[in-house]
Amino acid sequence: MSRPPRIGDFGRAGRPFRVGSLPPGARDQLTDVPGVRVGHWTLHSETQHTGVTVILPRGEENVFLHKCPAAADVFNGYGKTLGLVQVEELGMLETPIALTGTLNVGLVHDALVQYAIDTCAAGGVRVRSVNPVVGECNDGTLGDNRVRAVHTPQVLAAIESAGADFAEGAVGGGAGLVCHELKGGIGSASRLLTLGNETYTVGVLVQANHGQLADLSVCGQALGPEIAARLAAQQPPRPEEKGSCILVLATDLPLSPRQLRRAVRRCAVGLCRCGSYLGHGSGDIGIAFSTANPVEENETRLFVPRTELRENALNAVFRAAAEAAEEAVLNALVCAEALRAADGTVCHALREFL
Amino acid sequence: MSRPPRIGDFGRAGRPFRVGSLPPGARDQLTDVPGVRVGHWTLHSETQHTGVTVILPRGEENVFLHKCPAAADVFNGYGKTLGLVQVEELGMLETPIALTGTLNVGLVHDALVQYAIDTCAAGGVRVRSVNPVVGECNDGTLGDNRVRAVHTPQVLAAIESAGADFAEGAVGGGAGLVCHELKGGIGSASRLLTLGNETYTVGVLVQANHGQLADLSVCGQALGPEIAARLAAQQPPRPEEKGSCILVLATDLPLSPRQLRRAVRRCAVGLCRCGSYLGHGSGDIGIAFSTANPVEENETRLFVPRTELRENALNAVFRAAAEAAEEAVLNALVCAEALRAADGTVCHALREFL
Amino acid sequence: MSRPPRIGDFGRAGRPFRVGSLPPGARDQLTDVPGVRVGHWTLHSETQHTGVTVILPRGEENVFLHKCPAAADVFNGYGKTLGLVQVEELGMLETPIALTGTLNVGLVHDALVQYAIDTCAAGGVRVRSVNPVVGECNDGTLGDNRVRAVHTPQVLAAIESAGADFAEGAVGGGAGLVCHELKGGIGSASRLLTLGNETYTVGVLVQANHGQLADLSVCGQALGPEIAARLAAQQPPRPEEKGSCILVLATDLPLSPRQLRRAVRRCAVGLCRCGSYLGHGSGDIGIAFSTANPVEENETRLFVPRTELRENALNAVFRAAAEAAEEAVLNALVCAEALRAADGTVCHALREFL
Amino acid sequence: MSRPPRIGDFGRAGRPFRVGSLPPGARDQLTDVPGVRVGHWTLHSETQHTGVTVILPRGEENVFLHKCPAAADVFNGYGKTLGLVQVEELGMLETPIALTGTLNVGLVHDALVQYAIDTCAAGGVRVRSVNPVVGECNDGTLGDNRVRAVHTPQVLAAIESAGADFAEGAVGGGAGLVCHELKGGIGSASRLLTLGNETYTVGVLVQANHGQLADLSVCGQALGPEIAARLAAQQPPRPEEKGSCILVLATDLPLSPRQLRRAVRRCAVGLCRCGSYLGHGSGDIGIAFSTANPVEENETRLFVPRTELRENALNAVFRAAAEAAEEAVLNALVCAEALRAADGTVCHALREFL
Repeated sequence: MSRPPRIGDFGRAGRPFRVGSLPPGARDQLTDVPGVRVGHWTLHSETQHTGVTVILPRGEENVFLHKCPAAADVFNGYGKTLGLVQVEELGMLETPIALTGTLNVGLVHDALVQYAIDTCAAGGVRVRSVNPVVGECNDGTLGDNRVRAVHTPQVLAAIESAGADFAEGAVGGGAGLVCHELKGGIGSASRLLTLGNETYTVGVLVQANHGQLADLSVCGQALGPEIAARLAAQQPPRPEEKGSCILVLATDLPLSPRQLRRAVRRCAVGLCRCGSYLGHGSGDIGIAFSTANPVEENETRLFVPRTELRENALNAVFRAAAEAAEEAVLNALVCAEALRAADGTVCHALREFL
Repeated sequence: MSRPPRIGDFGRAGRPFRVGSLPPGARDQLTDVPGVRVGHWTLHSETQHTGVTVILPRGEENVFLHKCPAAADVFNGYGKTLGLVQVEELGMLETPIALTGTLNVGLVHDALVQYAIDTCAAGGVRVRSVNPVVGECNDGTLGDNRVRAVHTPQVLAAIESAGADFAEGAVGGGAGLVCHELKGGIGSASRLLTLGNETYTVGVLVQANHGQLADLSVCGQALGPEIAARLAAQQPPRPEEKGSCILVLATDLPLSPRQLRRAVRRCAVGLCRCGSYLGHGSGDIGIAFSTANPVEENETRLFVPRTELRENALNAVFRAAAEAAEEAVLNALVCAEALRAADGTVCHALREFL
Repeated sequence: MSRPPRIGDFGRAGRPFRVGSLPPGARDQLTDVPGVRVGHWTLHSETQHTGVTVILPRGEENVFLHKCPAAADVFNGYGKTLGLVQVEELGMLETPIALTGTLNVGLVHDALVQYAIDTCAAGGVRVRSVNPVVGECNDGTLGDNRVRAVHTPQVLAAIESAGADFAEGAVGGGAGLVCHELKGGIGSASRLLTLGNETYTVGVLVQANHGQLADLSVCGQALGPEIAARLAAQQPPRPEEKGSCILVLATDLPLSPRQLRRAVRRCAVGLCRCGSYLGHGSGDIGIAFSTANPVEENETRLFVPRTELRENALNAVFRAAAEAAEEAVLNALVCAEALRAADGTVCHALREFL
Repeated sequence: MSRPPRIGDFGRAGRPFRVGSLPPGARDQLTDVPGVRVGHWTLHSETQHTGVTVILPRGEENVFLHKCPAAADVFNGYGKTLGLVQVEELGMLETPIALTGTLNVGLVHDALVQYAIDTCAAGGVRVRSVNPVVGECNDGTLGDNRVRAVHTPQVLAAIESAGADFAEGAVGGGAGLVCHELKGGIGSASRLLTLGNETYTVGVLVQANHGQLADLSVCGQALGPEIAARLAAQQPPRPEEKGSCILVLATDLPLSPRQLRRAVRRCAVGLCRCGSYLGHGSGDIGIAFSTANPVEENETRLFVPRTELRENALNAVFRAAAEAAEEAVLNALVCAEALRAADGTVCHALREFL
């Protein structure tokens, strides 16, 4: 497919926008991390813009049986993300991560329960307990989110559609989002690290629904005030920051849960560089997993060997996390198209102003 | 109704079991805290023992509009309790607390979303975001928990049934639980504190599914080994501790969220005194709220007056929390009747051995 | 005294550097918060650049007897800040905050113990326990920090010298610091908020020892790479980020400890906007206190009235915290003069390049 | 040496006191963990009872160069323990752990800085930064703790004296402590675990200064009220719980920092079983380290192999931690002798009543 333009395809004063200094992966997306897959189910109707995005940490493989080391960090906890208590205690992820609208999280949680039961049953394993991880942003600004359109079939459709190539912008769990008062949604980016003789990938995917327009900064350029001035003529400003931002970090580096938590915290750096100050109403939460060092559901060894990146080599990972998060937010903005809300107002796209 | 016997109705060597030194409230239950109501919906069938218990922090009043200062403390996070991220950040509770089986939590979460939408709509308020709090224990030992029988109508039925008098034992979210390898379930207790010229109440309700039999201690008496010896002749021991215990603390004392977190942590003391060591697989979580200092959804004052208990007066509250939690676990055990599991085995009741 | 130039006295392309949109206080320093005082003791010798900076939360008043609501937030915990355990549990501050070099923290802690004993004894109160708060940055790059030159007399001298006017740059606990590979030190800024009919102040003071030069960004301008290019001709680059940044936020707004923790977290936003990504070796820690709602050591009331800012009015505070922190880092850089290190190398000043 | 009696040398009704079910190590002390050494420096004078206890995680070996995986858990944070911020972030311990009186912690911190500088210099390594861990209890009840008698020479003397055999009771950092209103101090215990074909040790050492007499429970026997009745005739009760309890857990099991944090939390279980309810004024803090998987200061490998106990095998460790902590508290009590305080009152010993 011909790929829609991303932030690096735009620029200022003859210079393309370039976030940071590390090289991106082949797709410059979360799925550059080997095995990671992303899928969407999207609904754009007259009354609603909603959906769900799923991240499969191990592609076809059953993540319940081969869990991922994982961690979470709550930058601002005005949010309803589900599943973090166990992730923090045990340091592992055992389901796909689903991102949806705020009021949908219970139903999507139940869908992931069903998915775990079914996929394990297919392998002869009975699931008695499972910890689904579901992130959310409020998609009640552009449509009526009380309907809760995402049920089990929709989540399964998103999983079914998951691949290494995936759309960004107003799709899946990003369909109804507003970011810096412009159309928001799903965005992604990745960075490559060469450590020793190997190349590793740090990928980030964001569900971006945060920020005020006047604060928007693109690669150090304060575009927000310019755009605000142009829009002021047309329409009243939106009320203050109420959204959220979920940031998912994946890597094939062997990081322990403690190290993953340190790494995902740096996603907040990228968020802030685009202009967020982690507003009161913004549930800004980072979730990270590694595809290395799988935790086997049926582990029989008492003492399990693991590999861990040397602690003082983490700086490269932190830089990658910050850069990929910053670019992912910008990709979410630049990939989203303008959209007419259920109430008739138009939510503009960043692309219109670049 | 004639009330079934509770732990204080039993004893040893001519002395009734007595937990701690503080006086209990009139009912010796969570609902001694003025305004707090508890309801159940219960299913005992051939294949399943499940249900849901709801705690209404303000009775008839809409808790979304008049939120409660609240806090949570995770003693052991191998659990799927939903809603804690926001409780910790904002220090408030805005829905009933529901306690159900592990695999039901998503559906129950969705039911509380619907309940908030409906009850607020009745008052002319549109809900765009709400943070349901749902605790859970695994009820997959005595029945097949994959069915997930608790949907919105069942949660609403539990809410509808809520009152100041409520049953304990194998009811509601306690229907299918196993505690110290005996029949577990819902238990409660309360303690009164006289501070200044006023009497205040600290109440605790537990959903008890934790512990091993050999560790069971009743008021310092190591009953567990005795019972284990008697049962050993009859049936093989159950596998090691895998359950959980959710402990909900309510009070009419004016405690800040920080103070509530300190108070609810002492519920773990009671848990340990009964013999738990917070086992690896036990999601042991405390949730606390105060009915004082309501946080108004439609607050218009910029500076809100509050009252806070002097910090060094908290010891009495801590003692009350520890005592009420210990007694609540014992009441859960003593109120539950023996039950034949779906696989034909019998889960015995503590009462048989007192 | 004639005040040395600060970041707003410099600019680019004819426009002065301006951080954010909120108005600063009269001094644009932490001491704009009424009652707050700052003092330094500084040592610049051939072998050492070290010292201590003290922040008196209540000026002449005894903070042990009239404690401040307080909170801390650890952005990156590779640091030796002392006293946070109790601040987090009790939400209060009972000593001046001292900022010094890493290896000095024990001695400075002991000095604050002595200070509490003496000042309370003067008022007839015997201190049996006190929780000094001491922040630190590593000042071992420009001199030999193993000597530990800051003892009780030096801390008392800093306290003695404290006033509403105070120097910034390479003074006190900032004497020997390096920030973004340039001379770092102490910096400060403040922002005013009008809430209702009153004006309140949010002030920030930083002890800045963090960052890499290539990442330095001044009000969105990537000055770091420019300066790095100019310096590359002269000297080898410094090794990677190893420093730290302590950020102290003060306000006269009535914020609870929970709210203060939320507010001080936004100081990290300012840090990141200057180019930090919270490096592995950087102990980045925020400490906040309010001068409102004093917690009296000799409180006799059981139920204490307090005032709390309405939660959703916090956004203005968050913005103020982010802006003041960003400007404070830049003031630390711009106020510091170049300095010849003990090893003969020169640590350049940002001012040389503006 | 002939060993003084410990809790297991006493009993009731012809049965010796026996804590839990797991077997103790050879010494039933922390030093059963291979390589761990403990030393004291003690001062009993007319005006003071104070001192310091040091725990050397690797005996003669330099722990700064060969750090230990470590974790901490704050049960109740009304305490001044130093060094936890970095332990939590990096999951490692790089100095001996010192336990002393509250007002001494700064000086003892400085002594550990000097010790690290000196021991590393002897090996040709220059220390620029080090994170001493110092725990404390308030020893101001039985003497005047404002004097702060523990300086560098005293700490070095304690380190010098460290061995596998060490005294318990009113020694070192336990000299001036009061526990359950009886003479408290240092206590220890250990438990052995057989996992696979190997035997591992979990050891606990406590610095016990907590609790009220009426709550004291010894192996389920409510001895506190009995003793209180006997003492009531002689002297007025002491004021309510104000002390603290520091619990140090060591093991040779390969546990990750996350697992160590889970394990040390179970030390609180033992504390509660003796009658503590984690009182408001009690700084109850657990610190844990493993001697396995050393973290090398001069690590050159980018990817470091580690071994980790399978998560669901942790229950045995949790039980060991709870049992060893409970017994350690009782050993602290039973090993301490009655002592006349500076004010002339007598602090009785538990031994008098057994």
